[in-house]
Amino acid sequence: MFNPKFVLTAMLAASVSVTATAEDVDTERHKVSISTLADGFTNPWGMTFLPDKSILVTERSGDIYWVSADGSYREKISGTPEVVAQGQGGMLDITIDPDFDENNWVYISYSEAAQDGGKGNSTAVMRAKLDDKKFTEQEVIFRQAPKYESNNHFGSRLVFSPEGHLYITLGDRYSRMDDAQTLDNHHGKVVRIWPDGSIPEDNPFVNDDNALDEIWSYGHRNVQGADIHPETGELWTVEHGPQGGDEVNIPEAGKNYGWPEITYGVDYGGAIISEDAVKEGMEQPFYYWVPSIATAGATFYTGDAFPEWKGDFFVAALKSSLVARLDLYEGRMMHEERLFEDAVEARIRDINQGPDGYLYLLTDQSDGAIIQIKPAD
Amino acid sequence: MFNPKFVLTAMLAASVSVTATAEDVDTERHKVSISTLADGFTNPWGMTFLPDKSILVTERSGDIYWVSADGSYREKISGTPEVVAQGQGGMLDITIDPDFDENNWVYISYSEAAQDGGKGNSTAVMRAKLDDKKFTEQEVIFRQAPKYESNNHFGSRLVFSPEGHLYITLGDRYSRMDDAQTLDNHHGKVVRIWPDGSIPEDNPFVNDDNALDEIWSYGHRNVQGADIHPETGELWTVEHGPQGGDEVNIPEAGKNYGWPEITYGVDYGGAIISEDAVKEGMEQPFYYWVPSIATAGATFYTGDAFPEWKGDFFVAALKSSLVARLDLYEGRMMHEERLFEDAVEARIRDINQGPDGYLYLLTDQSDGAIIQIKPAD
Repeated sequence: MFNPKFVLTAMLAASVSVTATAEDVDTERHKVSISTLADGFTNPWGMTFLPDKSILVTERSGDIYWVSADGSYREKISGTPEVVAQGQGGMLDITIDPDFDENNWVYISYSEAAQDGGKGNSTAVMRAKLDDKKFTEQEVIFRQAPKYESNNHFGSRLVFSPEGHLYITLGDRYSRMDDAQTLDNHHGKVVRIWPDGSIPEDNPFVNDDNALDEIWSYGHRNVQGADIHPETGELWTVEHGPQGGDEVNIPEAGKNYGWPEITYGVDYGGAIISEDAVKEGMEQPFYYWVPSIATAGATFYTGDAFPEWKGDFFVAALKSSLVARLDLYEGRMMHEERLFEDAVEARIRDINQGPDGYLYLLTDQSDGAIIQIKPAD
Repeated sequence: MFNPKFVLTAMLAASVSVTATAEDVDTERHKVSISTLADGFTNPWGMTFLPDKSILVTERSGDIYWVSADGSYREKISGTPEVVAQGQGGMLDITIDPDFDENNWVYISYSEAAQDGGKGNSTAVMRAKLDDKKFTEQEVIFRQAPKYESNNHFGSRLVFSPEGHLYITLGDRYSRMDDAQTLDNHHGKVVRIWPDGSIPEDNPFVNDDNALDEIWSYGHRNVQGADIHPETGELWTVEHGPQGGDEVNIPEAGKNYGWPEITYGVDYGGAIISEDAVKEGMEQPFYYWVPSIATAGATFYTGDAFPEWKGDFFVAALKSSLVARLDLYEGRMMHEERLFEDAVEARIRDINQGPDGYLYLLTDQSDGAIIQIKPAD
């Protein structure tokens, strides 16, 4: 029987051409070489490095690929969850367990259909063991509640705390933005669970009968970037704001980050969401962008390949096709540099540091790529 | 005898026309009305408000004017110091004593010729009593040492600490930049004296025989902006850096701000001044600009006319004809907004808050103006 999907998989499993022409670009502190490690991905959204330096990449349309460290070979992973691939939803972030070497757990966030067969959907997180090129022992460890019919604002990054908690950053589902201020739902929240889906005893709302136990912080819009500060161990998040109002936050337990009661932005088209940017009992951002750059993934840089970037926070942006480098010093924001605006003409969905200390970008295009940033010779 | 200077003075003492056409401009947090309060000044450099809301304005070429609060009338002040009006030097900053109501002291910084008749010059500070439209009881309370033949980098802002010290910010004289790292001179320093010129006993280097007693902090390039933080009482300075590398600093007693050993900039034309931006024993800026905006005067906003700007730090810029608003929150830099880029097409040398809570800009042009920024109706 002819199976077109099988043929496509077989084709993609073969070696693919790599646009290896490197471009050297001057930045304020380093001269870098930018090249395409691998392309031909359909709207890639998240990526993670395995201990052997190979890469797992999600495509929003629903697939996950294993890509060899040099980008020359890829293979589709089987056993992935069914996703609702519409609007901003689909297969989203991916990360590996801090003890992946021993347990092979991989964590995947994705848009999941309502289990009652209705039109609702929401972000869910599955973990599964990676056995060569297939996932096994799949377990859904988190489901954003309630399921809701919307194509927008799914979050969702996955990051592990130094103590082994899993943070999941979530969106407000756009038309349910007011839910971000109430604690009986997961809209516009950052949640914190253990990797098996259980609730940490010291989560801020576990003793509050009117609040969901998974909630770590609330009042968020659409958190698509997150990383752990390499020295403090704190969670840092990047929130895709409305028009004018992308934010960096350092979400603390039980705190309210204000959306949509306070914001530095306005709705798309200019409608006022709130007159207020500051309100008692609500946290101010660490940093914000007006006008918006349309933020997505983010990473702290801790490698040795770019010594002058050590400790800095890098934020990928969609609209402006750039990476913002926040030059941090002793916890302060000293300067923002905008990188790669001319060199990478694509929506940049994610940014990660590789095991080699290089930076890797994911371009969210119909022909999306993994871009490698390394020091120029 | 015909005295052309007298005629000019008499003409200028007459009412002058004011370009009163206001322009309304949207900013992120306030809609403002921008108008010219008074123009026809030759490269105005510094300004200060008197208790009756009238204004003293310096012209770099050597004169100081009293301007009525509504801008419609001005008169030249007599008894001003002789200045070396060449290059960046001349009549510079002006401020009044915190007890002006009782003592009428006014403080003026200016470029002073070497007293031996040589070609050297440096920044000096005179104080004098303002008696109607003339200065009396003139006393030179500070002379930057050594005198040096240079047309560049004179500093120099004058601000009083809450305890009544006078801070004087100084330049490195450009070709003497290395002097900023040694303490036997006033090049590239912030100094702190009492209003009568005496040295505070707790100045950081009073017990160091190899250091000048006036020095408060060192390693500066050309500090042309300064104000006192309204809550902490700390001195904040703005340093006109090299190409790429304008800085905001919060100079602390005895500390080294690194110029020219460390910098985020390069020399005009691109020559490397230092490979380093960070070095042990030297302070990092609070904030820096790359590329440069060519910073000049600065002020904290503490008024009621623009409630959303309260506590923010405003920095005037020459090259880019703008004012940078640093949105501060609990001592952190959250966001930079660039104001008036299109509305004010002129080098902005100074910015002050008026007694009415409006902001006032000085444009450093051959036909320079006092620009008033107030809320739009």
